[in-house]
Amino acid sequence: MKERILAEAEQLFWKYGVRSVTMEDIARRLGISKKTIYQHFSDKQEILQQVISGKITDSETKADCLTVHATNPVEEILMVLDMMRKNSGQVSPNFLIDIQRHYPDAFALYKQHKENYIMRSILENIQKGIDQGLYRSDINPPILARLRAEQIEWAFNNDFFPTNKYDMLEVQRELMHHFVRGILTEKGFAVYNQYLNQFKHEVERVQPNA
Amino acid sequence: MKERILAEAEQLFWKYGVRSVTMEDIARRLGISKKTIYQHFSDKQEILQQVISGKITDSETKADCLTVHATNPVEEILMVLDMMRKNSGQVSPNFLIDIQRHYPDAFALYKQHKENYIMRSILENIQKGIDQGLYRSDINPPILARLRAEQIEWAFNNDFFPTNKYDMLEVQRELMHHFVRGILTEKGFAVYNQYLNQFKHEVERVQPNA
Repeated sequence: MKERILAEAEQLFWKYGVRSVTMEDIARRLGISKKTIYQHFSDKQEILQQVISGKITDSETKADCLTVHATNPVEEILMVLDMMRKNSGQVSPNFLIDIQRHYPDAFALYKQHKENYIMRSILENIQKGIDQGLYRSDINPPILARLRAEQIEWAFNNDFFPTNKYDMLEVQRELMHHFVRGILTEKGFAVYNQYLNQFKHEVERVQPNA
Repeated sequence: MKERILAEAEQLFWKYGVRSVTMEDIARRLGISKKTIYQHFSDKQEILQQVISGKITDSETKADCLTVHATNPVEEILMVLDMMRKNSGQVSPNFLIDIQRHYPDAFALYKQHKENYIMRSILENIQKGIDQGLYRSDINPPILARLRAEQIEWAFNNDFFPTNKYDMLEVQRELMHHFVRGILTEKGFAVYNQYLNQFKHEVERVQPNA
């Protein structure tokens, strides 16, 4: 039952944000009583914390798997973007805005994930890229890792990119590609362009059937 | 007298930040009484507002002048970086941290400058670069202009780049060069590398006499 509650809450949060979803809503959708929910969770805040922390574990597992399968750091970073696209495609901007503004404990979980996992992954990616001659050796990895880590959050910033004017995934894509291009060597650009072409063909192959 | 007070206050603010500088300090340095200062300004806040707004006008004038003299958008963006280096070299991080945290009215002046002047200048630079084939035509100018405008502030962010670990000017330099590289075409890279070499030679020429 606990897993069903979490899964249903996640769906509702993604779609409508957190503030507008009540315990009543979750119970109704599952055809159970609010009392049953309270047997497992003390309040909505607790459900949210568990949803977020499950999502973080999930995304770390997926990203680690990509890292193992990527043939080089450029491919790796493009695969992570693709993963973000697939993962956050269904997430309403309301959800992300709610978390940042009204649920500091949940946002703290993300911040922790950013400071530990995300920062470390980016630094490792940059170091590998430099070692393989794909990224410039004259860059400052900690400064650029911080840039990249903050950019991910930025795309969700409603002051910078109001959701009525910008598409969040387009902002993520633009910032990520700009980030990669800013660190590539000539050899790196060759690899990058190759992946871009490959990716474009895939899009072209998919579209006629979409 | 008003100009002397502003000039002296500016020097003190730059060096020690705003919070730790008193009206007493400013009067003492000028060899005048606090009463004389109060004939011109109602409080420290008013002095600060006039210092900041003078500085903003000054930097807009200088940047406009660079834009007129730059032979292309790549040179222009590198000249602006050089101007920032010269202008903010003497500014203590305390000053910038004080403004952001404790003087919202002064910070609002900067924000206004950013939203109007800085954003417009960057967008114009990007558009010129695209028109001249130096910047990629597949970039999204408003998203990247926002990225660049926020980066300037970022370098002063003590949470991201603590002043005991990072040199503010080095952060500015790294972010600016990364930004430019991320938008250059092959033709743009040729121009960029040429300026880098030129600039390196200048540094080499200057250092032995420094």
